[in-house]
Amino acid sequence: MSFNSPYTLLHQSSQCPARCGQVATLHGTFNTPIFMPVGTLATVKAVTPENLLELGAQIILGNTYHLFIRPGHELIRSVFGGLHKFMHWDRPILTDSGGFQIFSLKELAKITELGAEFRSHLDGSKLFLSPEKAVEVQEALGSDIMMVLDTCIPYPASYDEAAKATALTSRWAKRCRDAQAETGQLLFGIVQGGMYPELRRQSAEELIDIGFDGYALGGLSVGEPKEQMHAMLDATVHLLPDSHAKYLMGVGTPEDLVEGVFRGVDMFDCVMPTRNARNGMLFTSSGRVVIKNSCYREDQGPVDERCNCYTCRNYSRAYLRHLFQCNEILAYQLNSIHNLHYYCSLMAEMRRAIAEDRFVEWRKGFYAQRGQSYY
Amino acid sequence: MSFNSPYTLLHQSSQCPARCGQVATLHGTFNTPIFMPVGTLATVKAVTPENLLELGAQIILGNTYHLFIRPGHELIRSVFGGLHKFMHWDRPILTDSGGFQIFSLKELAKITELGAEFRSHLDGSKLFLSPEKAVEVQEALGSDIMMVLDTCIPYPASYDEAAKATALTSRWAKRCRDAQAETGQLLFGIVQGGMYPELRRQSAEELIDIGFDGYALGGLSVGEPKEQMHAMLDATVHLLPDSHAKYLMGVGTPEDLVEGVFRGVDMFDCVMPTRNARNGMLFTSSGRVVIKNSCYREDQGPVDERCNCYTCRNYSRAYLRHLFQCNEILAYQLNSIHNLHYYCSLMAEMRRAIAEDRFVEWRKGFYAQRGQSYY
Repeated sequence: MSFNSPYTLLHQSSQCPARCGQVATLHGTFNTPIFMPVGTLATVKAVTPENLLELGAQIILGNTYHLFIRPGHELIRSVFGGLHKFMHWDRPILTDSGGFQIFSLKELAKITELGAEFRSHLDGSKLFLSPEKAVEVQEALGSDIMMVLDTCIPYPASYDEAAKATALTSRWAKRCRDAQAETGQLLFGIVQGGMYPELRRQSAEELIDIGFDGYALGGLSVGEPKEQMHAMLDATVHLLPDSHAKYLMGVGTPEDLVEGVFRGVDMFDCVMPTRNARNGMLFTSSGRVVIKNSCYREDQGPVDERCNCYTCRNYSRAYLRHLFQCNEILAYQLNSIHNLHYYCSLMAEMRRAIAEDRFVEWRKGFYAQRGQSYY
Repeated sequence: MSFNSPYTLLHQSSQCPARCGQVATLHGTFNTPIFMPVGTLATVKAVTPENLLELGAQIILGNTYHLFIRPGHELIRSVFGGLHKFMHWDRPILTDSGGFQIFSLKELAKITELGAEFRSHLDGSKLFLSPEKAVEVQEALGSDIMMVLDTCIPYPASYDEAAKATALTSRWAKRCRDAQAETGQLLFGIVQGGMYPELRRQSAEELIDIGFDGYALGGLSVGEPKEQMHAMLDATVHLLPDSHAKYLMGVGTPEDLVEGVFRGVDMFDCVMPTRNARNGMLFTSSGRVVIKNSCYREDQGPVDERCNCYTCRNYSRAYLRHLFQCNEILAYQLNSIHNLHYYCSLMAEMRRAIAEDRFVEWRKGFYAQRGQSYY
């Protein structure tokens, strides 16, 4: 067990598991609950680090699998001393372990007790990632928070399949912890267990026994109904130590973030704000806007009247529609800034609401503003 | 003749036709010699207006043909009162007339005395641009400097072909001047004449008789050898009134800018810095850099040691190579910022050198720094 948790609780809601706090890392402290923009290839797509700072991002995510393949963790370490200098970002970075990407490769990957054999999605070359190697790569990247290599479980999966993968995840988690050097980087364990509460409990207990600097929930938002995801959160989040940060991986929609926070989750990441931005789907306080729609042709208003982002301060829906119709690169930039700002501001609002102990009320207002019935 | 020229001469080189000055427009004054970044579709590709201000752009160019087709000048006028508000740029804008683009459409366009019939490159719909219409469209766009509708001449072209097109350009130029409303927007004439000095002289004289707020040289850098372009400049620039700005359209390389300034040109535009940026070709004080080259794989240095742009201040060649290899949007952004900064700074350097009456010496240094023999 790690006795010096990097997590500090600032306020616990009196009405639900929602809480706000801080996580201390080598590159400073970030406030929770937090959304981490995804910077797969050492760039959050279509925005600069300065854009990220302006829109309030406090920590971003890098993808181990992608950086391992290109440009290679060794280059990033030997030439730049890590990802921060390489990409010009000096706030915290969390790196995933590559487990989920390897899982996504399906027939291109083979999982053994030792680790994952897989072929590069770029050139088909054979590669190998063991728990030890995943730590080594993340140490080379110099991320502030490293994730253990886990084995992901498809949805749906049989109990036996899930049980087998979950047990292997625990063994790998232990190997990651043992392999870790004293760099000051944090290491988070990942709870698996598929849609089986019993396996989730077992996974959580085994990870807590090993002792990590934080705990993540993996294998959710993989195709299961929302109700099932919420049931899994309800069944698992409270099993994790309140002394530590709790991270729901790869999730999700604005509603998912609200429901996650409501259930006690501290950290989130998702490609949705940036990917949707590039597809012309913008998030607003009153719901989604598909910017290519012809109804915006002459619309002088900003994407969201309530939004104070660079895009909304300076550009109209008509202009954004025009840029998108013309496939102009500026469309991707402005849309990404807006969507990331929406996500980061949503989290900031939730932090304030929790700190002022009015989160349950705030959550009702969130749905009312969007014309959605209370979740 | 326009007696109140918007051009003010600040310094005339004692050794060559190079000069520096200022042009006053509805959206402020810009310094010459100047390079105008091209913002075809109401965006300079891959950069924000704030990027442009930071890198020192003072005036940008918009393309009449493209904006006429999409989103349409009427929308820009009726909803936004012009291009400036639409695209969030409050410094001067020059719009071309569409003549060159229609010329580029070749078999899709038909030129008559009345104007140019052409088909949209987007949906094939039939469109018509007369001299009067070109002015109307540019007035709707609200550009600070409008260009007359001209007829471009292919290279090579027979004397008769060139003479016919040049005469038509003069007749159209007169119609443009007559069609112009009192909006305060400037209107520049365009000297044609192909590669025939006699026709260039005739064209210049006819335009000066009509009287414009500035004079452009069209139909250069269309495939002719550099020596021929320089000969045409030498034969034409001095024919244009020194009381007015002289604009060399669609040119060109850094060397072209230096040679143009040396010959008395005040204004330039070209897609080269932005287009090359998107292709990974970067301009530096010592020559071109093809950023994808493997020699930059571990290169921690900036694109150009002498450059102070946002890209060079914060990113390495290795990182830019990585982004380019991965087709990341940030590659286009950072490369475009660098190349535009290079062009704008080059012009600023030339303005200083002229003001301090050391331009001829500066020009020698420019070539020496690049390992090129004196032009």
